[in-house]
Amino acid sequence: MVPLTEDSRVNAGVEALPDIQRTPDPRGIAIDEVGVGSIRYPLQIPLRDGGVCHTVAEVSMRVSLPHYEKGTHMSRFMIALEERQHELRPEGIDDVLLHLREALDADTAYLDVRFPIFLERPAPVTGIVGRLDYDCHIGAALNAKGLVEKRIGVVVNAASLCPCSREISDRGAHNQRSRIAIELRPTGNEFIWFEDLVEIAEASASCQLYPILKRPDEKHVTERAYDNPKFVEDIVRDVALKLAPYHERGVVAWYRVQCTNFESIHNHDAVARIERGEQAKLLRCEG
Amino acid sequence: MVPLTEDSRVNAGVEALPDIQRTPDPRGIAIDEVGVGSIRYPLQIPLRDGGVCHTVAEVSMRVSLPHYEKGTHMSRFMIALEERQHELRPEGIDDVLLHLREALDADTAYLDVRFPIFLERPAPVTGIVGRLDYDCHIGAALNAKGLVEKRIGVVVNAASLCPCSREISDRGAHNQRSRIAIELRPTGNEFIWFEDLVEIAEASASCQLYPILKRPDEKHVTERAYDNPKFVEDIVRDVALKLAPYHERGVVAWYRVQCTNFESIHNHDAVARIERGEQAKLLRCEG
Amino acid sequence: MVPLTEDSRVNAGVEALPDIQRTPDPRGIAIDEVGVGSIRYPLQIPLRDGGVCHTVAEVSMRVSLPHYEKGTHMSRFMIALEERQHELRPEGIDDVLLHLREALDADTAYLDVRFPIFLERPAPVTGIVGRLDYDCHIGAALNAKGLVEKRIGVVVNAASLCPCSREISDRGAHNQRSRIAIELRPTGNEFIWFEDLVEIAEASASCQLYPILKRPDEKHVTERAYDNPKFVEDIVRDVALKLAPYHERGVVAWYRVQCTNFESIHNHDAVARIERGEQAKLLRCEG
Amino acid sequence: MVPLTEDSRVNAGVEALPDIQRTPDPRGIAIDEVGVGSIRYPLQIPLRDGGVCHTVAEVSMRVSLPHYEKGTHMSRFMIALEERQHELRPEGIDDVLLHLREALDADTAYLDVRFPIFLERPAPVTGIVGRLDYDCHIGAALNAKGLVEKRIGVVVNAASLCPCSREISDRGAHNQRSRIAIELRPTGNEFIWFEDLVEIAEASASCQLYPILKRPDEKHVTERAYDNPKFVEDIVRDVALKLAPYHERGVVAWYRVQCTNFESIHNHDAVARIERGEQAKLLRCEG
Repeated sequence: MVPLTEDSRVNAGVEALPDIQRTPDPRGIAIDEVGVGSIRYPLQIPLRDGGVCHTVAEVSMRVSLPHYEKGTHMSRFMIALEERQHELRPEGIDDVLLHLREALDADTAYLDVRFPIFLERPAPVTGIVGRLDYDCHIGAALNAKGLVEKRIGVVVNAASLCPCSREISDRGAHNQRSRIAIELRPTGNEFIWFEDLVEIAEASASCQLYPILKRPDEKHVTERAYDNPKFVEDIVRDVALKLAPYHERGVVAWYRVQCTNFESIHNHDAVARIERGEQAKLLRCEG
Repeated sequence: MVPLTEDSRVNAGVEALPDIQRTPDPRGIAIDEVGVGSIRYPLQIPLRDGGVCHTVAEVSMRVSLPHYEKGTHMSRFMIALEERQHELRPEGIDDVLLHLREALDADTAYLDVRFPIFLERPAPVTGIVGRLDYDCHIGAALNAKGLVEKRIGVVVNAASLCPCSREISDRGAHNQRSRIAIELRPTGNEFIWFEDLVEIAEASASCQLYPILKRPDEKHVTERAYDNPKFVEDIVRDVALKLAPYHERGVVAWYRVQCTNFESIHNHDAVARIERGEQAKLLRCEG
Repeated sequence: MVPLTEDSRVNAGVEALPDIQRTPDPRGIAIDEVGVGSIRYPLQIPLRDGGVCHTVAEVSMRVSLPHYEKGTHMSRFMIALEERQHELRPEGIDDVLLHLREALDADTAYLDVRFPIFLERPAPVTGIVGRLDYDCHIGAALNAKGLVEKRIGVVVNAASLCPCSREISDRGAHNQRSRIAIELRPTGNEFIWFEDLVEIAEASASCQLYPILKRPDEKHVTERAYDNPKFVEDIVRDVALKLAPYHERGVVAWYRVQCTNFESIHNHDAVARIERGEQAKLLRCEG
Repeated sequence: MVPLTEDSRVNAGVEALPDIQRTPDPRGIAIDEVGVGSIRYPLQIPLRDGGVCHTVAEVSMRVSLPHYEKGTHMSRFMIALEERQHELRPEGIDDVLLHLREALDADTAYLDVRFPIFLERPAPVTGIVGRLDYDCHIGAALNAKGLVEKRIGVVVNAASLCPCSREISDRGAHNQRSRIAIELRPTGNEFIWFEDLVEIAEASASCQLYPILKRPDEKHVTERAYDNPKFVEDIVRDVALKLAPYHERGVVAWYRVQCTNFESIHNHDAVARIERGEQAKLLRCEG
């Protein structure tokens, strides 16, 4: 089996064939991003408690392409993924971007990694431990001037109970699963764990979710949600309240919180969004 | 523009080229179903109240292929769709299947059509009218002996409120959106409307959903759900109770009801299924 | 049945119940957008040829909420949808936004509508006509100063054939389905049809797709794609070349073209993006 | 932290609350399957080469419920998952089913586990190694008489090149990504690895996929596919040819192969299916 780095035999074979990608392009149009996407790949993500989460990621890697080049070299992205898989975690991303810039001979390199992590969640009364899944992502870019931009995010499901329904009804109150998405641009002054953001989201809902609930636990979470009603507006505001100090002390350059309530009384969703700070320059729209 | 039926010019062009599909196949393996899928197409579906619902369907059409033929003729399915689009509704399906059998020169023809319908749902107190969406499907097959099999189905979202949570809690009760899927094989003795099945599903949940709810309506549905708690087990049983008479009087040969509760206290779902009657011969697994 | 506008009986019932949404909020945090999403609704979209396309849309409507209000009034969005459904098309969007601003008593209103349209596509040689589906969207916002921002987009599937594979191989060349997404911000100086953008995308691929192809047509498209090889980079550049004049003559303030090739030789995708012009102020990231 | 097994404190708390689930049900309707679904969970799956694949699974667990019981005990499924996670692999499934039957006091237990595995795929000429993802699933049921039924399956993406397009065209041939799904019921006489099924699928397409291809590799796969054209019909027949011997020697009781070609010349798919052997009794339709 040939090692991952290309040996002379490979290079000889490659060089014997024409390289259409390297031919000049007459259109004069630079390409912002070109590369590969929808790659599934197993990764290990370090956790705040010192452990490691084995997970499966969806990866995308792109570079900028100057106006005078016809195409990029797609196989180099996949070789970089094989070689640098162990650095595809928050603290290794900068090195991967540097490597991509070099390997692809590009000004700017882009990276997106999305994966679930699994955290222990003991039941609130009985303490029985189960694991809950949270979607995380890391987006990052590095340009020729050394500017690094990063965006991290989590998606946290939780329970919301409607304050209006509770107030106007003689008994009960409609409640439902909500999806809380937090994204932010860390400045790098302080390390922010996905777990920190998960806790902020869970503390902002009517009640967090649990994988295992015995009857005393179910009684607890039912009453907890009833005592803690939240509109979709309340949830995004309460998350924003907890994120604002990060922004104020320069740890976060930008943040956005979105909440979607899968309304139990409707077939549509209630949605809300708060966004603060300066948007990214390199990382365009998609979170 | 050439009309949909192929004229002599077209046939001349087609016949000048070799027809690989028609060459004999040496492997001796008949193919159960071959054709086209994932086609989006606009359709008009008749409603029980005499109206018509303009909708967008996902269509699949297949035929059996004998062991001695290498391939079917895919373009004929798409021509059949263009020509027979106005018959792609419950009462025209038999003719479409007959046409497919002939056009493809096949023993057995298969058809699946999936689409949402939109029904008016006035709010329970204020009466303000909005429209709610329901996913419907029709599956059908016709073989050389004239055996016709059909399967129809609806997916209805509704609210469920947990009886256990209500019983053990001092206040409130967790509730959530549920997805109720009914599928059945009509014998043809009686026409069954999608709307009939929608009503059965909605009457079996803690409360139906509404597109528009003012505060008096929200109070009504909150209390209605609280007064009518249902486990996922209760919902499938209550649907089955309403379907059993159809089976007993020979209107339905087989039925299956499945319910998925998107639990507001968990990140996973509660699921239940009841199935009765004789499974189809021609229509295999996928509902 | 009560008409859609609320009569005095409804208002009386509503006013008898407390309105939690209207209570003051102490947190001092304005909400950028709050409203409803994931609504499926049947719409009629005018086509360039003078016809109308009956389709099914996914709709979202949001408004801004000032820091001192606890919540918005969700039912008013759904009533607005029922009342204004016939204006949910490119030329009626401004009126709907004005209505939302008033009905919700808000500074800024937001709207997103996504739907497929179906266009006739005669086969290139035989001329047999079938219909092809294209995903479209309209995003729009209106603020208190009367600033209107719009974004329209189409997603067009087409075929791409790899120039490198063709050049280095003695026979054949890998090709695949590609998804071309064009989004742009029209300035309003000229009306742009979805069909205009569909044609730009189809003319930029190796070959457009067809619903119905007889053998002479299949020969035509196979050879057409082989004679017209395109990298993912070529496709986004060729679309950008056709969009640049719109930008230069002030018809388009911003555009973005993205292409995804579902590589037939890999299990991952090749992706590319070009973006030019000034990003929106009101319409944030998600296209 | 309380250990996973319930201690006396937990049981005391649980028993103090009413157990609605255990109350008798008057409707007289047994439930075929009730339990939990859509659970994401990290698992380790043994590979044929002696290694282990860390992956993320979607899990569902259900049991039958007799007509006289109102509800099952959902938390026990999640506790079983935590306790038995290391047995959720092909050779441990029987024990998990036995445990579920006991823990839930049920006649029949059902289990579905779906996950990707990652296999090394060296490039065909240069030998550079990358990893490719394949979706796998295990379905299993165990009833009171000790009848065990299992179903395993893989989904393998590969390339298909159209024989008709190649034959009628002067140059090139349309090709595309295809999705090949194999499902079968092993009798238990011989152990079947997911990798065995992956190889059967890859050997039946025009060419298998590779994560990394340098130019000499791309030339190889382009020409390989051109020299090996396959209709969707050919692919399912070639897979069936390779599965038939398993059936004949009693290793497989039932098999089904389905192929979907994401046609590069159409916006719809070509589909085919072959099914042989005796369908399951306990495991109903959904593969």
